[in-house]
Amino acid sequence: MKVGIIGAGSIGLLFAAYLSKRFDVEIYTRTPEQSFEINKFGICVQKGSERTISVVKAYPISEWRGLEDFTIITVKQYQLKEIIMHNNKLASMPKNLLFLQNGMGHLKLLDNIRAHNTYVGSIEHGALRENPYTVSHNGEGITNVAVFNGNSQPLIQFIAFAPKDFPIILKENYYEMLVNKLMINVVINPLTAILRVKNGELVQNHFYFQALKNLFSEASSILKIENKEFYFDQILNICRSTAENRSSMLKDIEAGRLTEVDAILGYILEEAKRQKRSAPQIENLFFLIKGKEREQGGV
Amino acid sequence: MKVGIIGAGSIGLLFAAYLSKRFDVEIYTRTPEQSFEINKFGICVQKGSERTISVVKAYPISEWRGLEDFTIITVKQYQLKEIIMHNNKLASMPKNLLFLQNGMGHLKLLDNIRAHNTYVGSIEHGALRENPYTVSHNGEGITNVAVFNGNSQPLIQFIAFAPKDFPIILKENYYEMLVNKLMINVVINPLTAILRVKNGELVQNHFYFQALKNLFSEASSILKIENKEFYFDQILNICRSTAENRSSMLKDIEAGRLTEVDAILGYILEEAKRQKRSAPQIENLFFLIKGKEREQGGV
Repeated sequence: MKVGIIGAGSIGLLFAAYLSKRFDVEIYTRTPEQSFEINKFGICVQKGSERTISVVKAYPISEWRGLEDFTIITVKQYQLKEIIMHNNKLASMPKNLLFLQNGMGHLKLLDNIRAHNTYVGSIEHGALRENPYTVSHNGEGITNVAVFNGNSQPLIQFIAFAPKDFPIILKENYYEMLVNKLMINVVINPLTAILRVKNGELVQNHFYFQALKNLFSEASSILKIENKEFYFDQILNICRSTAENRSSMLKDIEAGRLTEVDAILGYILEEAKRQKRSAPQIENLFFLIKGKEREQGGV
Repeated sequence: MKVGIIGAGSIGLLFAAYLSKRFDVEIYTRTPEQSFEINKFGICVQKGSERTISVVKAYPISEWRGLEDFTIITVKQYQLKEIIMHNNKLASMPKNLLFLQNGMGHLKLLDNIRAHNTYVGSIEHGALRENPYTVSHNGEGITNVAVFNGNSQPLIQFIAFAPKDFPIILKENYYEMLVNKLMINVVINPLTAILRVKNGELVQNHFYFQALKNLFSEASSILKIENKEFYFDQILNICRSTAENRSSMLKDIEAGRLTEVDAILGYILEEAKRQKRSAPQIENLFFLIKGKEREQGGV
């Protein structure tokens, strides 16, 4: 089975390296320079003190023809529009597309996409790109996937072939799967990024914990979450089990990069607007993060 | 006229030094060590490249008998209870007390204070304590004062004698005077402290400006402010005219000290509770600042 990976950030590199053990993988990069380096050095995965190199063919994104059996789109939400425009202009309609963006803001872009089957996923791996061809796999996790549009068979087949040390789990309901991840991101990401603290601090410091509770309450109400206790306990468990980790938004802020605040808080603000309700805490944090991106020249 | 100054932080030192040009000033310090140093070196005021030394008698606070004609209490709000307990146990009732705390949380402590006349004030000076006997006078400003309880004559007399380069202005309405200062503190202090930015950034960065506007709206509604445009314009003017300054709360956070968040945001939260209304943005910022104090060991 031929698998295409679009985007060669931390997640793109991680998927390309692991999946290349079982599939014929090609990775598409934003810059020709990065393709050159991956073709020269392979993809290097650093996990603890272990270092493995995988040989993967790399091409600049402009060369993507959509001919693979299965294509995984790993770019950030704010880069997705461009990829979808490219996809919709391809000579032949792509077969199976799996989208791995954070948040839920990208779903509206997927409604009219040109593909036989469209899937979405959410990732629980911890990964950090060290250089154009090296990714550090800090946190072993799973990938949840679900059907967004179309037939589940190709997805089931893909999962069955995936390597055992890189588990991919089929979920029945894409909406529940993404809401679940979104709630985790909404609560942990902006607070850790603004406070510049590790995940564990949000439950260890009882003032931060109060802020977390209030934020959870506002977000879960806008998202009309019914089983609140389940979601809340899950967030606390993640704060505890990843206590020493820095959230992706914190890392983005520290590195002066754009964050995924539009995909995460922006989505909830749109949802609140649609419901004609206010979300004062989320709006406040949204502006603080956007301002921080701007202050650091990330825009 | 004998003037007592209680507290020898930046404001206490500044007032003692300037007022000693016209009055017989005594300053009371929290620690005997600080009295010793002030008695040895005098109070040193650094203003630009100019450095002046004033000879002022200093005593530990335990020696305060309340016998001065006019006493100015410059300690932080969270140190005020102790001073008031001391005051209410003095053998003779003090004549005139002027309280210079930030916020409005201290007003309820002043209702039953033992003194002939009680005044309150708000300061617009920029000052930073460099060491136990040196204060840097960074921003020239004025001191607004008003009667809280009692007779205005002693206050008017005090103002008339005050040195011309240290203006003290009588205000008719203490509540309006303090609300005005509180609104400035509520909006500028917590945002600059959490974001770690200078005052000007709040109006130069349009995302921060949105956060400022929303916060102003919530706070002015709880404080039932009628002339909102006047207050809002004033805050913008202060952000612009002090663009390069770091707010007092930011300086406290940077130095790992306790902030005045209880006096500032805490007061509005109490007010909201009394009105049975919610103040989600203010509550969120309150917990973030309290948590930051705790994280840095300031408690």
